[in-house]
Amino acid sequence: MSTDMSTSSHHRVNLAAPRGFCTTFKADLKESLFPDDPFNGLQNEKALRKVKKGLVYFVPIFKWLPKYNFRTFLYDLLAGLTITSLAIPQGISYAKLAEIPPVIGLYVSFVPPLIYAILGDSKYLAVGNLAACSLLIKEHIGEVASPENDPTLYLHLVFTATFVTGVMQTLMGVLRLGILVDFLSHSTITGFMGGTAVIISLQQLKGILGMKSFTTETDVVSVLKAVFRHRKEWRWETAVAGIVFLIFLQITKFIKDKKPKLFWISAMSPLVVVLVGCVFAYFGDAENHGIPIVGDLNRGINPLSIQHLNFDMRYFPAALKAGCITGAIAVAEGIAVGRSFGMKRNEQVDGNKEMIAYGLMNIMGSFTSCYLAAGPFSKTAVNYSAGAKTAMANAVMSLFMVLVLLLLAPFFSYTPLVALSAIIVSAMLGLIKYDVAFELLRVDKFDFLVCMAAFLGVAFISMDIGLALSVGLSLLRSLLYVARPGTCKLGKLPDLGLYRDLEQYPNGIKHSGILVLQIGSPIYCANCNYIRERILRWIRDEQTSSRDVVEHVLLDLSGVVTIDVPGIETLGEILKILTGMNIKLGLINPRLKVMEKMIASHFLDKIKKENVFLSAEDAVESCRFSLDRSTENSGLSSARQSDAV
Amino acid sequence: MSTDMSTSSHHRVNLAAPRGFCTTFKADLKESLFPDDPFNGLQNEKALRKVKKGLVYFVPIFKWLPKYNFRTFLYDLLAGLTITSLAIPQGISYAKLAEIPPVIGLYVSFVPPLIYAILGDSKYLAVGNLAACSLLIKEHIGEVASPENDPTLYLHLVFTATFVTGVMQTLMGVLRLGILVDFLSHSTITGFMGGTAVIISLQQLKGILGMKSFTTETDVVSVLKAVFRHRKEWRWETAVAGIVFLIFLQITKFIKDKKPKLFWISAMSPLVVVLVGCVFAYFGDAENHGIPIVGDLNRGINPLSIQHLNFDMRYFPAALKAGCITGAIAVAEGIAVGRSFGMKRNEQVDGNKEMIAYGLMNIMGSFTSCYLAAGPFSKTAVNYSAGAKTAMANAVMSLFMVLVLLLLAPFFSYTPLVALSAIIVSAMLGLIKYDVAFELLRVDKFDFLVCMAAFLGVAFISMDIGLALSVGLSLLRSLLYVARPGTCKLGKLPDLGLYRDLEQYPNGIKHSGILVLQIGSPIYCANCNYIRERILRWIRDEQTSSRDVVEHVLLDLSGVVTIDVPGIETLGEILKILTGMNIKLGLINPRLKVMEKMIASHFLDKIKKENVFLSAEDAVESCRFSLDRSTENSGLSSARQSDAV
Repeated sequence: MSTDMSTSSHHRVNLAAPRGFCTTFKADLKESLFPDDPFNGLQNEKALRKVKKGLVYFVPIFKWLPKYNFRTFLYDLLAGLTITSLAIPQGISYAKLAEIPPVIGLYVSFVPPLIYAILGDSKYLAVGNLAACSLLIKEHIGEVASPENDPTLYLHLVFTATFVTGVMQTLMGVLRLGILVDFLSHSTITGFMGGTAVIISLQQLKGILGMKSFTTETDVVSVLKAVFRHRKEWRWETAVAGIVFLIFLQITKFIKDKKPKLFWISAMSPLVVVLVGCVFAYFGDAENHGIPIVGDLNRGINPLSIQHLNFDMRYFPAALKAGCITGAIAVAEGIAVGRSFGMKRNEQVDGNKEMIAYGLMNIMGSFTSCYLAAGPFSKTAVNYSAGAKTAMANAVMSLFMVLVLLLLAPFFSYTPLVALSAIIVSAMLGLIKYDVAFELLRVDKFDFLVCMAAFLGVAFISMDIGLALSVGLSLLRSLLYVARPGTCKLGKLPDLGLYRDLEQYPNGIKHSGILVLQIGSPIYCANCNYIRERILRWIRDEQTSSRDVVEHVLLDLSGVVTIDVPGIETLGEILKILTGMNIKLGLINPRLKVMEKMIASHFLDKIKKENVFLSAEDAVESCRFSLDRSTENSGLSSARQSDAV
Repeated sequence: MSTDMSTSSHHRVNLAAPRGFCTTFKADLKESLFPDDPFNGLQNEKALRKVKKGLVYFVPIFKWLPKYNFRTFLYDLLAGLTITSLAIPQGISYAKLAEIPPVIGLYVSFVPPLIYAILGDSKYLAVGNLAACSLLIKEHIGEVASPENDPTLYLHLVFTATFVTGVMQTLMGVLRLGILVDFLSHSTITGFMGGTAVIISLQQLKGILGMKSFTTETDVVSVLKAVFRHRKEWRWETAVAGIVFLIFLQITKFIKDKKPKLFWISAMSPLVVVLVGCVFAYFGDAENHGIPIVGDLNRGINPLSIQHLNFDMRYFPAALKAGCITGAIAVAEGIAVGRSFGMKRNEQVDGNKEMIAYGLMNIMGSFTSCYLAAGPFSKTAVNYSAGAKTAMANAVMSLFMVLVLLLLAPFFSYTPLVALSAIIVSAMLGLIKYDVAFELLRVDKFDFLVCMAAFLGVAFISMDIGLALSVGLSLLRSLLYVARPGTCKLGKLPDLGLYRDLEQYPNGIKHSGILVLQIGSPIYCANCNYIRERILRWIRDEQTSSRDVVEHVLLDLSGVVTIDVPGIETLGEILKILTGMNIKLGLINPRLKVMEKMIASHFLDKIKKENVFLSAEDAVESCRFSLDRSTENSGLSSARQSDAV
């Protein structure tokens, strides 16, 4: 049996000597960076098995490939074909958003998915480019190089930004800094995606209305102004085509929502729109009728671009900034998408492995004429619905994309821009999640605020500021959590030896003369003033509201995980103040780290061992005993005796 | 009796409906900004009494003046005289550090102390200028206006920075943002003061060696380079005088340390140094012997300077930055000093009131030719030792300073600069607190790191960067606290119904098949991934290390003060994963806010009410009951029965 059968009674708090610095430091470091304990069970293995186990751990393909069979491959083949059909229109459309040659968008679905198939930890994630990040890249790189006037420099800087993203993501994975991504909360991502969806949709009015002049600003007001300022450029031909396409796409989505099994209708519809558009444009000579087309899509797979990476210090800061911001967003979104689909099948996705996979695929991508690749929600959803079983679906897509690039690419050069705009708008409308925002509003107002800050900030100011506002609010809340740890007054539940929050359990019993307070975690420099003030206020409140003379204050430290030097000093001050007020201080259940600090700083000698208790019950009993004695000694009629349980 | 005598037994968790948004929002806001509950007890009073009570609360002089008597005044008179003797040399010296006319340093001890005497909440704080802040002001304002080439503009910008400081401090007090100052931790302040002490001391080598050329940089390397590059300017006359003065000052300090009652010897010694220096300089014609003197100290009290405040946008940003940074440091240091001396007499100092007092004295100061005033440690220590009883000591100093300004000022113009340098070095040496740093190293390594970051950053890079590094580290730790809340495995203490951390109490009993985990606070977006991973790892560890089949996981939420939407979703995911692993999830003692969110988000319906327990004991009993039943049903030999307590 695993149970420790020792029956030696041990009523006292464990006052053993503190652990050494190295022990605690190692434990803390492990909790911070290796919470998933990757090397667990490796220590006692032989060298060869160690390497093998490590390889299986770090390169997920070794986990699933040995068990791979033809039946699974058929599923992945179908899923791969389906996502290829989505990859073509999305690739071209989002590349247009980033103002780079549309063929780059197709390249993205060749090299990166191959790498993800080897290293990716999610089974359902489909690799592709992202609308929001494409726009962000354009915003940042556009500041130092114009995509119209110097398209070559602009393109090279986009590759450089992709390289930066890759290096950053790999480093984050290797250094196990997934903790940083945790601060890009789900509320922030929801608001950010919604905000970018709104501005990207509005920008598509340019394509749908067939306009030529437009603004480079991205906020709602500037975009709407630009749309209405150039009213004379509006063309009914493109508008009609755009609306027809959009209605078609929305109907297929509606069908999918009603009958999830028909998801492939919605998945194929963007390709259908592109094909129909191409056929019309080819035979109808669209360009001469004022309907602009994509143009220039040459045959051939990704050319090398490693020689084009540009580290010129005039431009590099912009590429660095663009790479870091888009990299963080891509990782946060991708991991969230991978996890949420994994969750449906009860499968875990390791954030650190995902970051390394993303990083390497972006580094390789930047060498082979690709730009930022990640795991877009729409493509992944299609992949999941199409029945993908492993990351092989990405490899299949990669193969089909090679065929497209080698054989069909020129055909797609006839794609009318209005078709792309309709596809983008349709995809974007799905990213504005009213229901999530509403749920946030209902359950947690602050989360809603974080979400709205990102949404409104992105829509009305700029993408960076919206994101910064939202992340800032999240951080502020994190700081508030530690600056204002909750304290509460405890009372004894009738008939039970349990002490619980009196606000939550109003029928709890308060012994007169004894105040039991539960302190939140942690106690440290940024909140120790607050904790001191708050404890004194609890005493003041107790003495004024219930006209009770407090003689004992018991602090329940069960929830306090850690404490630092100013925290310990504060406990010392509280002890001193209470002693001055003739109140005795007792501590209940200090935990391991707190006890270690209390011993190291000699606070334990000040408060005395006998005033540290193992449970609230013990502590209150001891206080009542001393109260009874004092009332007996002073000869007062012992009213206190009456509140015995 | 105040005790609730209801004895209705109530073994279940309180599942009452959540409180309204307004209620919780009001409660949270109050905890964040008004933890000291200033208006407590005012609601039920009459209007006139309300005003009176409010006045007594907000203007501390009304609290002590009515009880003031002649005996107390005698104490304050002596203390006021003593700090005046210190205010003259310190005022002149630190004004020299800020490169403003030395008389400004005397003005600072006239108007601001008067205002502090009315509004200040600390009884022992002595108002004066600060060495570190003087240097910081010079650094920042010096960037846009040269103190040598354009002294008038420079001076006016210093007044403007003081005005900014005042407005900022007042706003912080009124908006009750003392919480911001809490993030300037004691470790940061210790390191920062130590670092500035080192560079200020080194800079005094210019005065002590009688050099004329020097650097404007403040880091150790530049200063030492400047000292040795101009070796030919060194003069033995000033060096001898400086060393004699310094030895004299250190001896008086040594006497004070040995016999605290003789503190006045040390307190008076800087004035003695100045007087001796003046006499020698006057009769010895020092200036012509190469010993530079202060020069230019005209009679007369503070002239108005409100018309000189300069809000020209070319210079204002520098004044704004200088004002904000020095203001924050001054407030943090001043409040810490006030509190630590108050603590010696068991008296509380209200941070918010102090901030308002500091703010108003700096605003008024900026109108009357003063620069940044706060509560320096050295002066306050002397004030406390000299027996000050109330803030009246500041008013006394103010009066004596008027006499000095009207009658004696020209005499001090003969003060040799080397005397000032010796005084500064002597004061600075006392600010390098090896013992505090060593104590930090012993008790908390991270606090030591925060302290060293400030110390080394200030000494070797720059004051701003050192400060930013240190505050950044503090914030990082705050974020780590919430990103990695401690979890631990609980076991039952023999013979007691208590569940405690098994690492702390290794003799606790683990029931096989049941895993009890205590979760740290809070559960929210930035740590929910961690918490999920960590719980799964506990289960994995349990199953591999002790080869025990976990069938029940119980999460003790007693310490979890708050949870947000992603946190609740994570609990849902954990429930789903565990259900997939055939493990039952139970929750122990969710607190008020957590329960509210669980109800609002319908998580309670998913986990079922019967799986939420009031105590670990209840929960384990219930799990063991179901385990026993299942083993009986499956007909296994019930090994589990044997580990009954």
